[in-house]
Amino acid sequence: MNIKINPEDFRVRPEKPIQIKDVPTKIAPLYKSGKEYSKLLEDYQKEIYDLQNMMYAHNRYAMLLIFQGMDTAGKDGAIKHVMTGVNPAGVQVFSFKKPSTTELDHNYLWRTNIAMPERGRIGIFNRSYYEEVLVVKVHPTILTKYQLIPEEFTQNLDQVWQNRYEDIRNHEQYAHRNGTIVVKFFLHISREEQRQRFLERIDRPEKNWKLSPADTEERQYWDDYQKAYEECVNATSTANSPWYIIPGDDKKNARLIISKIVLEHLCGLKMAYPEVTDQHREELQVIRKALVAEAPAKSKK
Amino acid sequence: MNIKINPEDFRVRPEKPIQIKDVPTKIAPLYKSGKEYSKLLEDYQKEIYDLQNMMYAHNRYAMLLIFQGMDTAGKDGAIKHVMTGVNPAGVQVFSFKKPSTTELDHNYLWRTNIAMPERGRIGIFNRSYYEEVLVVKVHPTILTKYQLIPEEFTQNLDQVWQNRYEDIRNHEQYAHRNGTIVVKFFLHISREEQRQRFLERIDRPEKNWKLSPADTEERQYWDDYQKAYEECVNATSTANSPWYIIPGDDKKNARLIISKIVLEHLCGLKMAYPEVTDQHREELQVIRKALVAEAPAKSKK
Repeated sequence: MNIKINPEDFRVRPEKPIQIKDVPTKIAPLYKSGKEYSKLLEDYQKEIYDLQNMMYAHNRYAMLLIFQGMDTAGKDGAIKHVMTGVNPAGVQVFSFKKPSTTELDHNYLWRTNIAMPERGRIGIFNRSYYEEVLVVKVHPTILTKYQLIPEEFTQNLDQVWQNRYEDIRNHEQYAHRNGTIVVKFFLHISREEQRQRFLERIDRPEKNWKLSPADTEERQYWDDYQKAYEECVNATSTANSPWYIIPGDDKKNARLIISKIVLEHLCGLKMAYPEVTDQHREELQVIRKALVAEAPAKSKK
Repeated sequence: MNIKINPEDFRVRPEKPIQIKDVPTKIAPLYKSGKEYSKLLEDYQKEIYDLQNMMYAHNRYAMLLIFQGMDTAGKDGAIKHVMTGVNPAGVQVFSFKKPSTTELDHNYLWRTNIAMPERGRIGIFNRSYYEEVLVVKVHPTILTKYQLIPEEFTQNLDQVWQNRYEDIRNHEQYAHRNGTIVVKFFLHISREEQRQRFLERIDRPEKNWKLSPADTEERQYWDDYQKAYEECVNATSTANSPWYIIPGDDKKNARLIISKIVLEHLCGLKMAYPEVTDQHREELQVIRKALVAEAPAKSKK
């Protein structure tokens, strides 16, 4: 059983800006049945598990997976289904919600900087510093009323966004140069799909907890958000830290595509299990002898 | 009593790289006596105190003062004497020594990123991320043996330093755009002055704690360090985040010059105490009436 998913089909190429309206939110299913989907996903999970183990042992690279998308786009679900099965010691998931007052007292990359993954780990950001050019761009009063940047730096708002795109590109370039591979997913759904998912969250009592009135309020800014996403991915998809736009209306499809992309990036790392030298092997034999010779400790009962 | 200190005399201009051997470690005293020095320093302290108070109330800008220099250059003393007298709630001092294993597990800007000053505060770094292009450049094995960056990124060491200069420039540009003013001091002493100060630390028992054999070991790399400083300040002194080379052989002189530079940068901030509107004043009067009318609470005993 194999399917062909080409990550290139979903990558935003720096030299070829996209128009969001031309990017599909739905493509033909990559699986023939629910059962086949489960099998495919499981195969990917196993491969990701193996490579993450090697990454952990090699302890040089880190990987940062960023998930962005409108409410209900499937960020939580994708993280859950793609990354379940990986050794939790090798994965660090952070969800970024409305910033705290302490976070607002610092510049906007501070809270995510703290959470950058350690060597050998896959870090996952459910929302991220990209909100600073998404929700903040759609509602620029956030910038002037809450983030408290000196007025002299927010006179020209268009310049603010251009500066932030540049700062983010620089931030990811620094990360890459030090071995942290940044891969970004925009889960792209249609407005109608969001409507259906919101309705489902209202109509199915066990999903009610997932929805608050504030969530649907943002829906009226749909077009502004789409524009913000378009500008953002075009400005910040680089050769080393690419954006992938994932057709999100079919959640199963989305998860298979994301799995494949994560896998491909893991495969691209020049890593191996640490080499064991002959000397080290000899040392181990010496230790072995000492352990064998040691009298077994009496059980403490 | 007034003296003329022109910060421009000490600033490294991006368009005019310096040669470290041409930069004096000693200039004529700016004070006539120890008493005059104390008076001058006190005046500066008062002015810095006032402006820092306003900065705290205004709560938009932050300032980061970075102190670098060879052992015994006078970093601790400068911080102590220039910043004593400022409200400690408005100042945050961090000393960066040999990185911990947790810090080494992250990329090199991580530990200083966490410590970036909050709005309204002056942050002080006693050593900083600049060590990554100073001690690490003089001893590049640190990079390959301890920092554990993937080998593919450390093949070309010269490229590593160029990349780090760029990453640091970008980092400070981002800080500036968000209201954090970065000002950097290189306390420049002569090799002979260091010898004298080391001898003093050995000959005066109460100073013995300040010296360990490891400190003097680095002295043999003096010329390499001077070269690393020269390249570093030339590559990372920018219009918004300048380096100042402070003649350090005379500690009193150095402290006066640093005070003047800090003061000038504080004066350059477009800040004021928050404006109180008529409406707010009226509200306060309403609250006042209620407080006055309230019956005094009985003492609890």
